[in-house]
Amino acid sequence: MKIGFIGLGHMGSPMAHNLMKAGMEVTVYDVMPDAVKAMTADGAKAASSVKELAAGKDVVITMVQTGKQVSDLCQGDGGVFKNIPSGSVFIDCSSIDIVTTKALHDEANKLGLGMLDAPVSGGVAGAAAGTLTIMIGGKEDVYKRAEPILQKMGKKLVYAGQPGSGQAAKICNNMLLAISMIGVSEAFVLADKLGLDKKKFFEISSNASGQCWSMTSYCPVPGILENVPANRDYQPGFMAKMMLKDLRLAQHAAEAADAPIPLGGMSAELYELFVNQGHGDMDFSGIINLLSSK
Amino acid sequence: MKIGFIGLGHMGSPMAHNLMKAGMEVTVYDVMPDAVKAMTADGAKAASSVKELAAGKDVVITMVQTGKQVSDLCQGDGGVFKNIPSGSVFIDCSSIDIVTTKALHDEANKLGLGMLDAPVSGGVAGAAAGTLTIMIGGKEDVYKRAEPILQKMGKKLVYAGQPGSGQAAKICNNMLLAISMIGVSEAFVLADKLGLDKKKFFEISSNASGQCWSMTSYCPVPGILENVPANRDYQPGFMAKMMLKDLRLAQHAAEAADAPIPLGGMSAELYELFVNQGHGDMDFSGIINLLSSK
Amino acid sequence: MKIGFIGLGHMGSPMAHNLMKAGMEVTVYDVMPDAVKAMTADGAKAASSVKELAAGKDVVITMVQTGKQVSDLCQGDGGVFKNIPSGSVFIDCSSIDIVTTKALHDEANKLGLGMLDAPVSGGVAGAAAGTLTIMIGGKEDVYKRAEPILQKMGKKLVYAGQPGSGQAAKICNNMLLAISMIGVSEAFVLADKLGLDKKKFFEISSNASGQCWSMTSYCPVPGILENVPANRDYQPGFMAKMMLKDLRLAQHAAEAADAPIPLGGMSAELYELFVNQGHGDMDFSGIINLLSSK
Amino acid sequence: MKIGFIGLGHMGSPMAHNLMKAGMEVTVYDVMPDAVKAMTADGAKAASSVKELAAGKDVVITMVQTGKQVSDLCQGDGGVFKNIPSGSVFIDCSSIDIVTTKALHDEANKLGLGMLDAPVSGGVAGAAAGTLTIMIGGKEDVYKRAEPILQKMGKKLVYAGQPGSGQAAKICNNMLLAISMIGVSEAFVLADKLGLDKKKFFEISSNASGQCWSMTSYCPVPGILENVPANRDYQPGFMAKMMLKDLRLAQHAAEAADAPIPLGGMSAELYELFVNQGHGDMDFSGIINLLSSK
Repeated sequence: MKIGFIGLGHMGSPMAHNLMKAGMEVTVYDVMPDAVKAMTADGAKAASSVKELAAGKDVVITMVQTGKQVSDLCQGDGGVFKNIPSGSVFIDCSSIDIVTTKALHDEANKLGLGMLDAPVSGGVAGAAAGTLTIMIGGKEDVYKRAEPILQKMGKKLVYAGQPGSGQAAKICNNMLLAISMIGVSEAFVLADKLGLDKKKFFEISSNASGQCWSMTSYCPVPGILENVPANRDYQPGFMAKMMLKDLRLAQHAAEAADAPIPLGGMSAELYELFVNQGHGDMDFSGIINLLSSK
Repeated sequence: MKIGFIGLGHMGSPMAHNLMKAGMEVTVYDVMPDAVKAMTADGAKAASSVKELAAGKDVVITMVQTGKQVSDLCQGDGGVFKNIPSGSVFIDCSSIDIVTTKALHDEANKLGLGMLDAPVSGGVAGAAAGTLTIMIGGKEDVYKRAEPILQKMGKKLVYAGQPGSGQAAKICNNMLLAISMIGVSEAFVLADKLGLDKKKFFEISSNASGQCWSMTSYCPVPGILENVPANRDYQPGFMAKMMLKDLRLAQHAAEAADAPIPLGGMSAELYELFVNQGHGDMDFSGIINLLSSK
Repeated sequence: MKIGFIGLGHMGSPMAHNLMKAGMEVTVYDVMPDAVKAMTADGAKAASSVKELAAGKDVVITMVQTGKQVSDLCQGDGGVFKNIPSGSVFIDCSSIDIVTTKALHDEANKLGLGMLDAPVSGGVAGAAAGTLTIMIGGKEDVYKRAEPILQKMGKKLVYAGQPGSGQAAKICNNMLLAISMIGVSEAFVLADKLGLDKKKFFEISSNASGQCWSMTSYCPVPGILENVPANRDYQPGFMAKMMLKDLRLAQHAAEAADAPIPLGGMSAELYELFVNQGHGDMDFSGIINLLSSK
Repeated sequence: MKIGFIGLGHMGSPMAHNLMKAGMEVTVYDVMPDAVKAMTADGAKAASSVKELAAGKDVVITMVQTGKQVSDLCQGDGGVFKNIPSGSVFIDCSSIDIVTTKALHDEANKLGLGMLDAPVSGGVAGAAAGTLTIMIGGKEDVYKRAEPILQKMGKKLVYAGQPGSGQAAKICNNMLLAISMIGVSEAFVLADKLGLDKKKFFEISSNASGQCWSMTSYCPVPGILENVPANRDYQPGFMAKMMLKDLRLAQHAAEAADAPIPLGGMSAELYELFVNQGHGDMDFSGIINLLSSK
């Protein structure tokens, strides 16, 4: 099984490593020479262009920042789609917008290529440990063929359905995460200002209808849960600017689908305010400080 | 133990009944003669005025609609505070605003009375079965004295702390509930419009960072969970107009405490829109229909 | 014409002065002795209680902070309503909530008193110069009787209609003012970040469909208009905390009237954030700094 | 002066006609044969491809729907940029996103072409009458060269500055228009529910700090102003779905510029709700019906 891997950042590098550890032949490409060097030192092959990387591969994986980057990598004479063998599989693990994802699926389909949109969650730690959750959209037979590879990078694979469903699942889940994190923050700040003890409110609400993952697994108030960013001055974790990026993807998706997302949209604005105040690199649960004016 | 009980509506009547079943002597008062008659038929005594009701009681309980009603019942020459024996306890089980609650605590304290704010959750069914959750604010020794009585009406008692903490706990929890219910609704509507199967999204998000009680115990989408209002055309359950009332209490609390609640405030506006469109008696999870334009 | 005047703050003092300048006999009352002393030095009479102030007056005017204060001043055995001669007129110039205003109108009516709600705009400068705008609600014949007095305090009198209409007019106008001020601020911040010159944007939008008083008479961007708070580091003018108070009144009114105010409600939250960050005494046009993160 | 004109819809057709009326030689292109036929019947030349249209022209104008369409028309071997003579000018009159506009300016610049972004306002009536307002971004010398042509299509030309400034001006102005229209609507609905006469509120607020173009030139309440959509059951005018499109452009611009637009974002959600309820073709001032639940 010959694999091409494009995008060797904080997430991509450990993911590619896990493929190598599993005995697969991995060829890598990145615009940053140092990132490539670090991989070849560990046994990866290096391609000098996307065209070279794609040639002769069974699977090409991308893990980059934006829909435009994925699009540029795939399209054109030197791109993945024109240079990967017919019948091969293209897997995009980036978190990008629905419109671009669907357009690439259409194009791959016309060219006789398999494609999966396969965004991940679990962060850098999960990428290193191979414990990512991977949400997958695309044809089911393509998913079945790619499953053994995806299992090397993630612990939990969820096949979400038709093309774009992987991105849709991640976008909708993360929008809900942002809303509930801000909701939990508002509730704790209000409770505190009303003179209700924070631990008492946690005890009550976590056992009642206010319970949510943002409260019971990732509480934004220091001193309630162990091992959460709130206890280490909101060092990430999952950075506020990355949450803002996901909320912008939700807005793009909502625009494309004609869906109203009043709280999702307002959450985007609040994270925009927070990031503008210089806190983009803080964990996203630090948004509680915007509300408490700390 | 002689108890006075004011307010024999859908909640108050079964609560008073449960006190009688436990062998307590209960005197009741309500402006609706039929409500009083139904209670006396079951063995309660009836008072013809608040003054008469309060006289000689160990505990007086109110279960009414608004802070103004509680205030009017307590104050003045004919009110509870001037006519209940010194050293007695006043328990307000209504869900009312923080400012009124704290003012009444102050006044009760000056008069040598004990007071507890003790709003409940669990609905009419919980009131009948005696399984309400009761959130209690007030001095701890007053709580200890009243505990045996509260246990007859509720299954789970939570002592939240200083005066007003019971109301604060309920208000903050329910605001968070409204936010997460709308958040879940936005996420499902968007997922659906993006072509992601609803059951698949539930499977993914309920096991991920989007998990919350609104999704996993009270899902607003029909056909996902059993026995939720979504499966019976959103018959309540907990009515949208009652959620709106609680969100208005959250706004009053936020004003008094100088706390920003951007998503809580927006949730109030969305429920206001929904109630104005004629859906006040629908279950609060029906808000998903506002977003999906059904 | 004997007038009683209660509330000698920054607004009330100059308003009472203008009545005296017009030759009216003014008796004053305030809890702050210094405020009273300053008025008596200029020829006012002082009353030692509300009861004494009300006795024998043709008109009693209040200019205080909250609905509760007005209510407390009017009601009870020592209050204005029981001690002013039957047939006299009570004028409340405070900016307070609709519910309290309407309740006081009802009570005054039962007692055979005339009442007007008559909130003002124009600030301290307008109060001193006698150039306030006064919005008046109440029966038209009562308004006609009070008109000569109101004309001494304000330059522009607007009779808005039935009881409560004065407060309604002020609340709705100021809510719209807050919304448009934030809207103008968002537009300028976005334009600036997009590289569009601020003066150019002003030139375009002030002559197009974006024109509004907040832009063309009170522009929040420094260097566009003369003599606006933006040009003096946002020294008020009209303080952000006073705008927040008015937005809270709008929320109370919307609750009482079952009206959705999504942008009004969000404006309240934004001013709450701004005030919480320590800027309550800044002019309300300083909200642009919240958006530009300056 | 030889002009190529692409996009013969409701706006483009009358704009191209006005160029012909002024004696210019106009060659047109559109994917709809009927639209082309209607123009050639009036004396225009027709090109069978974009390539043919661009060849030999002094100026090429586009008036289409989306940034992607403009981009596709300009780029590629058959596009405007590769086939228009060096030194010619490309004018995009479409309302599109800032990111695409700036990217096209960059590309045009590299190829030695002049480019202007020149979105219009004034609607179909303004296009027909040649009275459009045109907001123009690009190099000043390019603007000067194109001015005589733009004057044939618009009555008021505003040179806004550097590349992208035309789009920025339109986007920011229209976002502010949406905010103030919703704000005016909220204020009127609240005033009405509080019992304040609509004409009275108009009289007060239009002369006070709530004044804005949405109120005094385009009032959403029927019976206040003459000749506004409110008086003809909200027949457009400017359709709600077009306002939604502009608000989506504002969100894209805000994302690109890292600007928070809380009220602009919420306005987009409210128009999305309104359009989803089936009112996309109604005038944008009809949004008042969403708030009044009519």
